[in-house]
Amino acid sequence: MPTRRRLLDVAVDLFTRHSVAGTSLQMISDELGLTKSAIYHHFRTRDELLSAVMEPLIAEVTAIVESAEKHRTPHARADQMLTGYASVAARHRTLLPLLSGDPGVHELLQNRSEWGDVVRRQVALFSDVEPGLGGQVKAALAMSGIASAAGVDYGVDIDDDTLRDELVAAGRRTLGLRGSRTR
Amino acid sequence: MPTRRRLLDVAVDLFTRHSVAGTSLQMISDELGLTKSAIYHHFRTRDELLSAVMEPLIAEVTAIVESAEKHRTPHARADQMLTGYASVAARHRTLLPLLSGDPGVHELLQNRSEWGDVVRRQVALFSDVEPGLGGQVKAALAMSGIASAAGVDYGVDIDDDTLRDELVAAGRRTLGLRGSRTR
Repeated sequence: MPTRRRLLDVAVDLFTRHSVAGTSLQMISDELGLTKSAIYHHFRTRDELLSAVMEPLIAEVTAIVESAEKHRTPHARADQMLTGYASVAARHRTLLPLLSGDPGVHELLQNRSEWGDVVRRQVALFSDVEPGLGGQVKAALAMSGIASAAGVDYGVDIDDDTLRDELVAAGRRTLGLRGSRTR
Repeated sequence: MPTRRRLLDVAVDLFTRHSVAGTSLQMISDELGLTKSAIYHHFRTRDELLSAVMEPLIAEVTAIVESAEKHRTPHARADQMLTGYASVAARHRTLLPLLSGDPGVHELLQNRSEWGDVVRRQVALFSDVEPGLGGQVKAALAMSGIASAAGVDYGVDIDDDTLRDELVAAGRRTLGLRGSRTR
């Protein structure tokens, strides 16, 4: 019987390489050298598996959103959201690109309304810095850009803290937050 | 017999909704109400179809890269690349999110070496503004972020020029280009 952890790791790897819709439970069991029934012991559908992959990530982002919303000014709220999100992105860097680009994940976020709600609150924290379309475009650019940039292979080993700091610096510039002028 | 244009439009729509790997020629022919042989008249594989979808886009980006590389300073080169890319992103906004997030497109770009080369030259034009990892992270964030932000539904109709201008404004901030300080 495969451990649940190992199953999730293999799923993330295949989701990233083939997209969620391009990955079947059959492919996952083949990769693990197992029968499909060994997988069914843990997950009955690909969507159940995808939910299990995303759950800890969304839980982290939810906690950051709730904490960031308590700050007094739009700038402080956006900066707290950005720092937390960049840290999540750096630590889960293999998983994050899925979150920004994969239609299967997009669909999951829409279908689980409490998850879609968290994403909307995060976007609002970013876009409230600048009223109007400009703020919304910058928020969208920062959200997806950070998720994608975290997963890029820069040709050297980069530890999580270094990557987080670079993502924060870039995100502050995009959103027009304090710190952007001093760099 | 379907027109080639209509076939490409349906393919883009399905690629966007289900990812490239999650879209079969069968799904495309079903959507068009046609047999698979009617599709085969135009394209024999999904990869051929994907190439045909991407070809005009890559041709436009190639022309922008070549023109941008002629400028004298890194800032002028990056700004020219950014303005051109934002314009492409706004005009092809349904297609662009695929370019940043879909593993099938990523694979295609790697397999067609002249296309991967264009992407690398674009990244270099963006990252040369700031030496080191900081510039590389900001370039990756701008590249993917602009592609994703172009495809977002902001709840209102936005014409191509307005969207392009907002993407340029956000991208200049991210990359630290002239204009970012005046906003």
